[in-house]
Amino acid sequence: MAAEAEAGRLRKEVEQLNRQFALGGLPADMQSSMSLSARVAQIEARQQSLENRTSTLASSVDSIGDLTEGFSFTGYARSGTLTDGAGAGRGGPYMTPAGSVGGAVGRLGNEPDTYVELQFSKESQADNGTRSKYTVMLADGVETPNDWTASNSSLNVRKAYAELSNLSSFQGSPTFRNATLWAGKRFDRENFDIHWLDTDVVFLAGTGAGIYDVQLTDNWRLNASLMSRSYGDFSTDDSKDIRSYIATVNQFFDDGRWQLMLNGIASRRNNAKLKDSGSDPDERNSRVNKAGYSPAESGAHGLFAYHRPDFFGGEGFFKAALLYGKGLGAEVKGIGSDGELLDEAEALRLALYGHTRLSKNWRIAPVLLAEHSKDRYVPGDNYRWLTLNLRLANELTSNFEMVYELGWQSMNLDPRGYNGRQKSNGDFWKFTVAPTFKMESGNFFERPELRVFASYMDWSKELDDFSTSDNFGQKHFKSGGVWQFGTQMETWF
Amino acid sequence: MAAEAEAGRLRKEVEQLNRQFALGGLPADMQSSMSLSARVAQIEARQQSLENRTSTLASSVDSIGDLTEGFSFTGYARSGTLTDGAGAGRGGPYMTPAGSVGGAVGRLGNEPDTYVELQFSKESQADNGTRSKYTVMLADGVETPNDWTASNSSLNVRKAYAELSNLSSFQGSPTFRNATLWAGKRFDRENFDIHWLDTDVVFLAGTGAGIYDVQLTDNWRLNASLMSRSYGDFSTDDSKDIRSYIATVNQFFDDGRWQLMLNGIASRRNNAKLKDSGSDPDERNSRVNKAGYSPAESGAHGLFAYHRPDFFGGEGFFKAALLYGKGLGAEVKGIGSDGELLDEAEALRLALYGHTRLSKNWRIAPVLLAEHSKDRYVPGDNYRWLTLNLRLANELTSNFEMVYELGWQSMNLDPRGYNGRQKSNGDFWKFTVAPTFKMESGNFFERPELRVFASYMDWSKELDDFSTSDNFGQKHFKSGGVWQFGTQMETWF
Amino acid sequence: MAAEAEAGRLRKEVEQLNRQFALGGLPADMQSSMSLSARVAQIEARQQSLENRTSTLASSVDSIGDLTEGFSFTGYARSGTLTDGAGAGRGGPYMTPAGSVGGAVGRLGNEPDTYVELQFSKESQADNGTRSKYTVMLADGVETPNDWTASNSSLNVRKAYAELSNLSSFQGSPTFRNATLWAGKRFDRENFDIHWLDTDVVFLAGTGAGIYDVQLTDNWRLNASLMSRSYGDFSTDDSKDIRSYIATVNQFFDDGRWQLMLNGIASRRNNAKLKDSGSDPDERNSRVNKAGYSPAESGAHGLFAYHRPDFFGGEGFFKAALLYGKGLGAEVKGIGSDGELLDEAEALRLALYGHTRLSKNWRIAPVLLAEHSKDRYVPGDNYRWLTLNLRLANELTSNFEMVYELGWQSMNLDPRGYNGRQKSNGDFWKFTVAPTFKMESGNFFERPELRVFASYMDWSKELDDFSTSDNFGQKHFKSGGVWQFGTQMETWF
Repeated sequence: MAAEAEAGRLRKEVEQLNRQFALGGLPADMQSSMSLSARVAQIEARQQSLENRTSTLASSVDSIGDLTEGFSFTGYARSGTLTDGAGAGRGGPYMTPAGSVGGAVGRLGNEPDTYVELQFSKESQADNGTRSKYTVMLADGVETPNDWTASNSSLNVRKAYAELSNLSSFQGSPTFRNATLWAGKRFDRENFDIHWLDTDVVFLAGTGAGIYDVQLTDNWRLNASLMSRSYGDFSTDDSKDIRSYIATVNQFFDDGRWQLMLNGIASRRNNAKLKDSGSDPDERNSRVNKAGYSPAESGAHGLFAYHRPDFFGGEGFFKAALLYGKGLGAEVKGIGSDGELLDEAEALRLALYGHTRLSKNWRIAPVLLAEHSKDRYVPGDNYRWLTLNLRLANELTSNFEMVYELGWQSMNLDPRGYNGRQKSNGDFWKFTVAPTFKMESGNFFERPELRVFASYMDWSKELDDFSTSDNFGQKHFKSGGVWQFGTQMETWF
Repeated sequence: MAAEAEAGRLRKEVEQLNRQFALGGLPADMQSSMSLSARVAQIEARQQSLENRTSTLASSVDSIGDLTEGFSFTGYARSGTLTDGAGAGRGGPYMTPAGSVGGAVGRLGNEPDTYVELQFSKESQADNGTRSKYTVMLADGVETPNDWTASNSSLNVRKAYAELSNLSSFQGSPTFRNATLWAGKRFDRENFDIHWLDTDVVFLAGTGAGIYDVQLTDNWRLNASLMSRSYGDFSTDDSKDIRSYIATVNQFFDDGRWQLMLNGIASRRNNAKLKDSGSDPDERNSRVNKAGYSPAESGAHGLFAYHRPDFFGGEGFFKAALLYGKGLGAEVKGIGSDGELLDEAEALRLALYGHTRLSKNWRIAPVLLAEHSKDRYVPGDNYRWLTLNLRLANELTSNFEMVYELGWQSMNLDPRGYNGRQKSNGDFWKFTVAPTFKMESGNFFERPELRVFASYMDWSKELDDFSTSDNFGQKHFKSGGVWQFGTQMETWF
Repeated sequence: MAAEAEAGRLRKEVEQLNRQFALGGLPADMQSSMSLSARVAQIEARQQSLENRTSTLASSVDSIGDLTEGFSFTGYARSGTLTDGAGAGRGGPYMTPAGSVGGAVGRLGNEPDTYVELQFSKESQADNGTRSKYTVMLADGVETPNDWTASNSSLNVRKAYAELSNLSSFQGSPTFRNATLWAGKRFDRENFDIHWLDTDVVFLAGTGAGIYDVQLTDNWRLNASLMSRSYGDFSTDDSKDIRSYIATVNQFFDDGRWQLMLNGIASRRNNAKLKDSGSDPDERNSRVNKAGYSPAESGAHGLFAYHRPDFFGGEGFFKAALLYGKGLGAEVKGIGSDGELLDEAEALRLALYGHTRLSKNWRIAPVLLAEHSKDRYVPGDNYRWLTLNLRLANELTSNFEMVYELGWQSMNLDPRGYNGRQKSNGDFWKFTVAPTFKMESGNFFERPELRVFASYMDWSKELDDFSTSDNFGQKHFKSGGVWQFGTQMETWF
């Protein structure tokens, strides 16, 4: 009977096991839910659908990739209006007499133009790992607010260059492993600017070739390049022939914190005889600048800079730069771009600027820029100017800031009649308030910004007489206090 | 024996169960197919492969996205030839004398140029949800069919503006939640055109700032903007100083079906004294228009329009617009774009147009455009014109349509000698047939279209004498019947 | 007892089976690993995660696709400097007197410009399968190395055309199934060039319409087009009216190996009377060319070419082309582009060129280009020239090649005073060495290339007197041996 009872129990258990198998082999406590077999079948169906979807996606990505792979579009633009309440306003960072020799003032509420840079790039990579990047930039700047600007257009190609990086044949060398070779027309990669003055501390640009990121030691990185620029106006075959060549060595130490840039400039035809035939002595004149003096054929330029990735420990950054130039190097910002300078020309410029956070809702950006230069275009000429600028931003909502700018410039200019300019000594100051919308408040460099603004500016009466062709020489724009208003969009990406 | 027999049966069943386990736990009726365990193993392998593929895809998408995210390219272009059988043909929507004051005629078979708009945009979104979109447009129009057109090029930047939408700080307000802020150089978003005449009903463009889509009530949406334009030719400092400012309020009711747009225009220096120094009275002249009259310094403009998203119940749409302008507002299409208008200038324009389907294979688009304006440039001048136009399309294959255009224009113009123009009264008519290829027949607005065409046009002899510098004033182009032929591509996307 | 013993054994087996179920139904030998149920649960979790990831990816791809779908950016650019050691160098493929009638010399180390082509395309496909592609090209060429070139800019729109292919209504016809229709401004798709001379063998461009790839038989493919160009300089209404029309039939046989292109050119107003009014006979002059002769009103042109997809069995390719033109067709490269040619003008040009591999590390590209033309601009004028060119590349590392170019040109030119040009007979030769970096050595057509170069060139003294306005007519550039140096980037993609 025990065997029969045991057989009866076994019978029940085996029947239970058989029922479990009929349900797909699930343990008893899961038989109330889906059978394992059904789950697997569902997984298989979902997997098939997922595989199909992934294939479709992959071919979409391929077809997008085939066409657009390696493409990028970047740019800068500002577009705005500036009015004195009746007609066009006047402005721009170089609007004062000191601006004629590079003395920028604050840009906020002071720009009347639509300036656009469109940059298109194409990157690719070879099987051996070497990468290339080609970049071309179109740019335009006009003052007319009209939409059709063909007759005022300045549209032109500012960059067209290619880079090779991660070169496979350099991979064995710690010095050159990370080096980038380039050739073509470009802005130097290491140019840097004071955004609030719309002026570069240093701006090297032209056509040539060079190398970046030669790693001499762990703390010593070197760039070198040779660039060409033209001085002539291309109106005669002689002016077409003039070129300046700029040889540059640019070194960075201590993770880029310290920078030493040295430039040599040569332009052997810059004071060349204009005509080499003819017996008439009047026809054997050499090329002269606007003041009648023979310009330099060479120059030297140096920049020493300190780049701090914080503002003395706080949020932001701080930068200091000292620039010196002689001869053709005495235009210390746009290296080699001024062909009117004399051999004895000298300039020394100092830039100190940065930005940081003052409090939860306030940010500040102070700037000092000053220069003393002499013997530029006329022996004995003398130019001194100093700009102080302060940009403040008060974050009021997640999209809205009140932005303020205070600017003051002092200048003492003795151009000795160059280009019809008169000796001038005086001050300029400007205050601007600009209610500003942006995607996210809290960062000086986040764009786009949409702003309206009101600026009040005034200057010493003597500055009105510096030149009849500059802003202060115009009839609607005289010392005594000027209000200007406007709207502006600014973006970069 | 019963127990033994039972044990024997159980033995068989248990052995059966064991065999099933050996096969992966499948129920007996599935043992002929794959075991569950093997299916799971296969699923796991496929899943691994799918995960790898998805990772690869994701990194492709990332690398495409990093470079191109938010980028878009849109545009418009037409490029064609027009010949009278010997040399260049003549044409364009404003080819008749009435065209000098905005009287467009049909464009089909009547365009001799290559006109291109390239529009590049970049969109982005902040973490707080606010979106931005930057748009820049290059445009060019030339009549030479040559490929190298540098000496005739009109390439210029027509737009450069940024928009902020979905602003996080506006999300609490039903009125502003969907509003878009913008600033820069642009065409107003609400401009609309009569495609078949290549003329806008209203075209507001310039540089400024504004807001779209302020939702005052469920049925009342409002846009507002302030835009600037220039009138001067920038040849003198005085002409550079002239600006017009256009303040616009544009309202839509009943889901955009009804539109009321109001514009005020101010240009305080438009008749300013050209020189304010000098005792010679001849030097104290004010700015005058080409007829010697002082132009207006202000203007008013209004548009009332009805936008119907169907053609009286049928496929297509229907639009009606009535425009009135006074002073600088009397150029009723291009708001604020004509600085020659007098204070007393007045214009009233009516536009009625739409498109619909006539039958399975025929579509029709009728247009009426008419204007009466007076005291425009010379007190007492008077301009009346009316254009009727009919575009017909007959769908013959999935890629081919025969397109026809019938146009008639009547004009009665008394310019009182403005710009050398003579009193003219007469009619113009044109008939065009254009065999047309496209991707998919059946839609007036699907592009590209590739077409060849033949046009026959004629006009009243009196119209030949309106001007010596317009089309009808040319020696190869006189009343009496003119055949012209050509090819054209047109696209937008 | 047997039954009991059997029941005991069965009991153990059933307990074993129950344990297996408790472990997820795994056979005994897999119980040490994961249970099937746990594996399925894990698969389900991974599948859910994969599905979520795929959805995210799909929406990324959609949003990328929505904006960029069908977009592509392609281009060409070169940018470099060329110096004689003091100022600007002189160069270009057409720098010699023979260049005035199309006699190109080698381009390596001989290009002083920044030339850029930016091409933007948009492709789409209709539901019926028909595809469209729109292409627009911007191009610019300047010699100044400066970055801001607004005053020298040649930026212009060289292409704006649309194509329709895979037309659904053509799918039933074997002849038209693969045909492409196009209209607009473009370069003909079948133009081909001798890269090393920077000269096209044939260059057809203008505005018009045409069809590609009509498959007449398996071995006979035909293209046909009608294109327009302008000859006038657009300075007067008369010159604006002049057009040339070029009708082209271009046939390919034997998989494109043999090509026969025939062109007819008509320009009915090219020698038209300039003024049709006035009794003064001097005012009834016809249009004349620079030498005072009436230019042709028509022309004929033919090209017969052989395209071999290998270099006589080796790596590379070989091409031969014979071109003949009469009247307006006597400019055999740029078809219909020269409106100064006489009715009796004739030209015959031969081009032979290709490239192949010489050895493991050396490649070679030989070129012969020669022309005889006469009665071009003055009855009895006579131009003969022949260019031989050899480009050699020596692959030294995976990124570096030494590239050499040897060029020689012989010319015998009798222009009979056309455009101030003098009879000249002589030779020109040039040798260039160019150390070159690229992504991957080994292919003549892989770009970008970054190169520095030195060229030595010399020519017969008599060639200095050909013209006072060409390169050899300049004071800094005379026979006797000239060294020039420079850097250059070249890319296309």
